[in-house]
This record gives sequence, C-alpha cells and structure tokens, in this order.
Amino acid sequence: MNDIPSGNPPSGDTASRPTIRLQPSRHKRVQHGHPWVYSNEIHMDNTAKAIPPGTVVRVVTHDGAPLGAATFNPHTLICTRMLTRDPGAEIGRAFLADRLRRALDLREKLFDRPFYRLVHAEADGLPALIVDRFGDVVVLQANSAGMDRLTPALLEALDEVLAPRAVVLRNDSPSRGLEGLTTGVRVASGSLEGPVRLEENGGAFFADPGVGQKTGWFYDQRDNRAAIAALARDADVIDFYSYNGGFAVQCARAGARSVVAVDRSEAALANGRAAADANGVASICEFRRADAFEELERLAAAGQKFGVVIADPPAFVKSKKDLQAGSRAYRKMTRLAASITAPGGFLLVASCSHNVDVPLFAEQVARGLDDARRTGRILRTGGAAADHPVHPHLPETAYLKAQILQLD
Amino acid sequence: MNDIPSGNPPSGDTASRPTIRLQPSRHKRVQHGHPWVYSNEIHMDNTAKAIPPGTVVRVVTHDGAPLGAATFNPHTLICTRMLTRDPGAEIGRAFLADRLRRALDLREKLFDRPFYRLVHAEADGLPALIVDRFGDVVVLQANSAGMDRLTPALLEALDEVLAPRAVVLRNDSPSRGLEGLTTGVRVASGSLEGPVRLEENGGAFFADPGVGQKTGWFYDQRDNRAAIAALARDADVIDFYSYNGGFAVQCARAGARSVVAVDRSEAALANGRAAADANGVASICEFRRADAFEELERLAAAGQKFGVVIADPPAFVKSKKDLQAGSRAYRKMTRLAASITAPGGFLLVASCSHNVDVPLFAEQVARGLDDARRTGRILRTGGAAADHPVHPHLPETAYLKAQILQLD
Repeated sequence: MNDIPSGNPPSGDTASRPTIRLQPSRHKRVQHGHPWVYSNEIHMDNTAKAIPPGTVVRVVTHDGAPLGAATFNPHTLICTRMLTRDPGAEIGRAFLADRLRRALDLREKLFDRPFYRLVHAEADGLPALIVDRFGDVVVLQANSAGMDRLTPALLEALDEVLAPRAVVLRNDSPSRGLEGLTTGVRVASGSLEGPVRLEENGGAFFADPGVGQKTGWFYDQRDNRAAIAALARDADVIDFYSYNGGFAVQCARAGARSVVAVDRSEAALANGRAAADANGVASICEFRRADAFEELERLAAAGQKFGVVIADPPAFVKSKKDLQAGSRAYRKMTRLAASITAPGGFLLVASCSHNVDVPLFAEQVARGLDDARRTGRILRTGGAAADHPVHPHLPETAYLKAQILQLD
Repeated sequence: MNDIPSGNPPSGDTASRPTIRLQPSRHKRVQHGHPWVYSNEIHMDNTAKAIPPGTVVRVVTHDGAPLGAATFNPHTLICTRMLTRDPGAEIGRAFLADRLRRALDLREKLFDRPFYRLVHAEADGLPALIVDRFGDVVVLQANSAGMDRLTPALLEALDEVLAPRAVVLRNDSPSRGLEGLTTGVRVASGSLEGPVRLEENGGAFFADPGVGQKTGWFYDQRDNRAAIAALARDADVIDFYSYNGGFAVQCARAGARSVVAVDRSEAALANGRAAADANGVASICEFRRADAFEELERLAAAGQKFGVVIADPPAFVKSKKDLQAGSRAYRKMTRLAASITAPGGFLLVASCSHNVDVPLFAEQVARGLDDARRTGRILRTGGAAADHPVHPHLPETAYLKAQILQLD
C-alpha cells in the first residue's frame, strides 16, 4: 500500500491556490484564533466541492478579506484546517521544517532525552498530524487528507530537522476513514526490525511502532506514571491493560514489593518483560496474560488486595453512540478495581475516550467507588503530559483523564 | 477573642444526641457517599431549629433508618456535614486523632518533609476543617460551627498525633461568617514569633501564619511551581502576586537568569527576600512593590518581554455575583501577561476562584491571548497538589486551576 500521492507537491504554486469563502459572519471564530471551519460555514459550491481532498487553500471572509491558508477536504465536517494567517504562505518543506523545529525546541526544553510526542496536531501548528519520537526512529500519523498530501514534504522536513534513522507511517487511525484515506502501516524511510527502545521517567522501555496499538507507546501518561510510581514503594501493585509495561515497570523501579502486569496481548507482555529485564526488576514482576475484566472479577471474588491498583484501558467510548455503555464500563471497572484495593491503598483509573469529559468520568468513578462500598479521596486529576499540548481554542481535545485516589 | 466554646465537649453523650430526619427520598445522596445535606432536605421543625449550631447529631432517613453522625447548623444551607456512617460513633479526641493520623499517613507517603496541608476538609473526613503544617507549627481553620465546637478536642487530638510546638487558630475566613461564627486569629497553644520556615520542592521559604493571607503559604501550587520552574532555566522571569516568593524563588533556584517578584505587600516581599537569601539566589532576584495590573500595564506599554511570566492572583470572583466582572479580570490579566511574554516563552496563569470552573477559565485565557494577538499552546492544566485532595462526591470543590502555556 502506498499512502503517498505522487505528482506535484500540493501547495507549491500559491498564486493558483483555490479560495474558500466563508458564510457571512462565520469568519469570527477563525479570526479569534480557532483552527477549524466546518463545512456548513463555507460557500460549498461546485467549485469548492471539486477541490481535491487535502489541497491547500486560501480562506477568505464572505466579503473576501483574507483569513489565512488551510488544508481543505470538501467531504468532511471539519473541512478547513488553518495552517497560518498568511493566505499566501508557501506550504512546503520550509514551512513544515519551521513548525517541526518549533515543536522540537519545546520538547528539548521539556525533556532531557529524545523520547516524546514531537508533534501534537493543531496545538503544534500542524493540524491532524501526530509525530512520536523514539530517539532516531520517528512515527508519523497523518489524520487528514491535507496532512496526507503533505507527507512527502513532511518527510523531507523531518530529514532536514532530525535526520531520523527510520520513519514509520502509522496511517491506521479511524479518523483517516472519515477523511476518505486508505489505512495501513509502512516504513517510509530507513528500516526497522523488532521493537524500538525508549526512555521515560528514567526507565528503559520497548515499543513496536510497526505492530502495536497506536504509535507504539503512550507518552501521554508520563506524568501520571510518575505520580503513581511515587506511591508504590513497598506496595503490591497490579496494572491492568499494562500494554508495554509503562506503569508496571515504573512502579517496580520505584520500589514496589511486587508487580503484576495484566494484558491480553502476548506481544505487549513481551515488551513489558523486556523492560523489566532492562531495568533490573524482573524478579519482582509477573506478566500475566488475561482479559482485564475477567481477571478483575476473579481477583475480587478471591478477596485479593493490592496496595496499588492501576487500570488504564483503551477507550471504552469510541463514538457518541457508545457513551452510555462505555460510561457504565468505567463505572464497572472502578467498582472492581476498588474492590481489590487494600485499605489505605491507591487506585489509578484513566480514560482516553474523547467523548467522556472530566465531570462525566469523575461521576462514573464516584459511582464505581460507591458500588464497591468504598470511600476515599482524589489526590490527582491528571491529563496528558506537556508533549501533548492543547490548542487554546480546542480545550475539548484534552482527551486523557487519570484520577489517582486513596481508598479507606 | 476566644473562639473556643467553654463547657462540655459537644459530642460525649451519644445516647442523648439529637436526631435529624431527612425529607422522603432525600437520603439517597448521603447513602451514596455524599457528605452534605442541605437545609431544605431535612425536617426543619422547631426542635431542629433549636439545636445549638455545631452540635453533633444522628442523621436518619424519613423512615428512621440510620445514616450516620454529622455536625449540624440549623442556620446554614449546608446544614448537615457527615462525619461517619456510624450514627452512634463517639466524636471526640479519639475519633479526631484517628482522622488526623490517617491524613498524616497519606502526607508522609506523599512528601519527605513535614510541610504540607495536613487536613483538607471533607476529603480527609473532617468537614470544613483546614490544617496546614509547617514542621512543628500547625495552623487550623475551623470553617463550620461543628468544627468550631470540636476545636478543643481537635487541639487535644493534634497534641496526641503531632505534639506541635505551636498551634495557630486562623479563624478569619468569610465562611465562618455564614456559620454565624466570630472571626479572628490567635495562638491557641505554644508561642510564635515572626515568620515560620517551610520547605517546598527542595527550597526554603518563610510564611506568616499570624498576619499573612490565608494560612500563610499556598501549598496548593506546589506542583505548578515545580512545573514552571522546570521551564525557567536561563529565562528572565516575572512573577505577579508573588506573595512569599514561592514561584519566584523556585524559578531562581531552577536556573533563571533574572527574577522579578511583584506584590503590593511589603511583608510578603520581605518573606520573599528572606527566601531568596536562604536559597542563595538573592543576587538575581528583585522584589518590587507594585500593584499587579499597574505594573503589567507599565511593562506592556514599555514593550518589555520576559521568558517566563507568572500571574497567580487572589480570587477575582469571590461570589457568584462577581462572576462576570471577575471573569473579565482573568481575561485582562491574561492579555497583559501575554503581551509581555517573549516569543517562545512561557506563561502561567492561575485562578483560585471557586466559582470559575475549568472551561470558563480556559475560555477567558483563550480570549485574553487573542486580545493580545498571541497564539500558543496549553502545556499543562494543573490543579491543587495531592495534599489538597478532593472528595469524590464534591468534584466542584477542586477550586485551583493553573494553565501553563507556551506562546509563539
């Protein structure tokens, strides 16, 4: 599968750039800094409809006043994603390299080591683009037709800024479907064999950008991992949905007495085992292949208790229609996890569902606690780490919610 | 002024404890773990009205089923604050010492050094009580008639658990007025001369539990101070509403090039200077007496720029009627602070207004940025540190919001 369109770069000739005209008074949000225009806010005439998805366009008000340049996809609700307020800016390698450099400067201020989310879409001025960095291996997700068309220029820009040994195009997200794009994963440059090594909070870990979930590692939980690990000294820890062992091994490194990591994926457990080895904590870590809810039910029925319980599941609510069932799943997960948390122990529950906001998640957690007849206190409500910045006009894109509680 | 009522302890005789009966079906929230009953949810008959404010009562459903024990004040909206699900529990020194010990155990897990909020009210099972610890000096705030009546027993319990050198009753909060209590500050035991010393994030600081704002030090910003300090290396920093120098001196310790701390209070600035001295960073710190908005306007007009700008004001919204004007103040503060933030620099803006929720604050910040014609990204939305836990059924009491942004 080839995700890279051939032919001319999509935005070289700014003079012939198509123009998208907004409906009357629909320019205000963009003027105030919002990066999106919805399809019902523009003059979607036949000319606009005929613009190839992903083309860079000039955006103007109803009266023709310039608003900036954007990528455009006539077939999606978020049809226009602003790139810059300069309507004539050339959008190519230089522009993209500039944005990448700005993103890199920030991460180098935030972190000592080259392991982080390098680009977090709109907040980094590169709408719909995700770039994760694992040292000299880089993983890209282009989640819009615009970023898909810009991928060849992006690869050049990445080469200019970082000169990575390998670049993986991890174009398998559902949002690509909405944009009418094909999905698939491939190595775009260099070569990659087996898991990549990364570091987080002082530990070494392994991820599979080629085969694992998402981009191979969830850097977003970095701060929440540090926070719960700081409470794990001398505790028996259990980590559900342990994936590559991020939470589990960081708790072990912080002095836990024992750690059980539970996941359904043998490949993920293998990465966890490798991390436990690399950090010298394999002797206190067990990697257990099981379904999280089944294992939770089993341990609860057996009356087992742990000093630290972690449950960081994949999104239970993938779309708005799942909201009720998914919310109930967070409640049930909290009930079961609370029931195996020792008195005085700590519970971390997380949700990465975009559709579950902070108050709804807090409500499900509170209900789950009560279902388990447990009381306690919220010590921390944490979001994604700082390498997952949020656009000031898109606060709703802050998808990650993690609560750390102490139970009585 | 003497805030401690004389006479018998309020809760010794559990047999003669008055009973508060709830209205039909109004028991469910409490049954599910909520700690409050509102005055319109109980049978407020003449007997109930005659109960002395602050008395410990037995709480029962409409049908007489027991719900637990609570403190009661017939004159307040939150008339019943649950203490325990055991309606006959004796509420005295032993009960209070037990809750204090539990709170202390948690803080000793969270922190290496004895400087923290020891009790954060409902979340620590001691409704309306605030206890801040500065080593062997302890500062209490009893914000309900119930906690006021329990203060003698609390002092005994504190002596049993911590044996502090001095205890300050800092009973000057506005919430005491709502409870019909007198306000005032006095040393209840031991003696205290001059500021107390405390440590936070590795630095030494000074606070005045006798004369300063609140309880002398805002431990709630601990994590946010660490987060912005980590970005302050080599930067010119300015800290508005600097109070005792928490943000300013921590930025200096973290390697800032220069730090200006702005506050209106000479006493606060003196504590900041003492902290700068104690941390060996006095040579790069300037403590400037000024009104924050006036200084912001002046610096903005002069075109001065700083790599890190911090603005952590007192609550602009003290009650719901201030909501509009106060929200505008956050927007204006953000506009001015953004206008003196250098390109690529960092801005921390905070609000401790209970009535301003996270989305409203985020909106004001976004508008303020746009007013300054600045773009950027939110790196962190932080709340209060873990020694300010939140009751799972009172998520709305999470009052502190701090945003760290990078501006372009």
